[in-house]
Amino acid sequence: MSETDSESVDDKSAASEENAPEADVAPDFSRGEGLLPAIAQDVRTGKVLMLAYMNAEAYAETVATGHAVYYSRSRRRLWRKGEESGNIQRVREIYIDCDADTILLKVEQIGGAACHEGYESCFFRRIEPRPAKIVDQRIFDPRNVYRNS
Amino acid sequence: MSETDSESVDDKSAASEENAPEADVAPDFSRGEGLLPAIAQDVRTGKVLMLAYMNAEAYAETVATGHAVYYSRSRRRLWRKGEESGNIQRVREIYIDCDADTILLKVEQIGGAACHEGYESCFFRRIEPRPAKIVDQRIFDPRNVYRNS
Repeated sequence: MSETDSESVDDKSAASEENAPEADVAPDFSRGEGLLPAIAQDVRTGKVLMLAYMNAEAYAETVATGHAVYYSRSRRRLWRKGEESGNIQRVREIYIDCDADTILLKVEQIGGAACHEGYESCFFRRIEPRPAKIVDQRIFDPRNVYRNS
Repeated sequence: MSETDSESVDDKSAASEENAPEADVAPDFSRGEGLLPAIAQDVRTGKVLMLAYMNAEAYAETVATGHAVYYSRSRRRLWRKGEESGNIQRVREIYIDCDADTILLKVEQIGGAACHEGYESCFFRRIEPRPAKIVDQRIFDPRNVYRNS
């Protein structure tokens, strides 16, 4: 299963009774060049807050600390969510998808805003149906949270 | 903004009043080598169903038809969700994240199961906290849905 996407029809063999899915599977960091997408969803409301990436080290630290740690592709280092803004994410549950190449975190978002632009969710813009619309309210002004550094 | 991740502190400038976010932004397919992650979420329950990838063509067809179309990385072609199983996704709303490099679809999942393994959601396994557990019920048996082809 490690060589195929979830969309691969070959994966159906994994669902046979002889080869039923195991609950106790780990994220497969051999895929995606060591980076897997991780979705953060509010554990109470179900709102999708953001998507970022994890490498094996970020995932291990997330599990060990209970706080979301991602890997910043632009800064090429671990990104401890909230390290600058204080808006950490307490991780309540972690799910893995059928191919073990996408992670879903159910989190408690401290500060009420996951987005660096000050919105609760990074998905604050609905682009379809038209007209596009900003659908969230700003929780904070980024200029007051992020200092020049 | 196109060169940075959402985690980049440089992005904070985009949130100033002089450069406020625009609602009417399009997915930026110049990033991620032309493939962007797309999260499908049940429009009624808020359940996260799956994550797949879209290229510009898949996105355009999704908007034009109102049915989710992804790009299969393993098969290297458009993947019209439900083309084999019949379990199409009717796309009700589309959201874009702050960096315009992740897509969120709010969908109506026909057939009640998004996962090729027969579960409502591809995230049917909770791996933390331990012990890991399969948390969903199978909606269908994949052997009855996917024919050898």
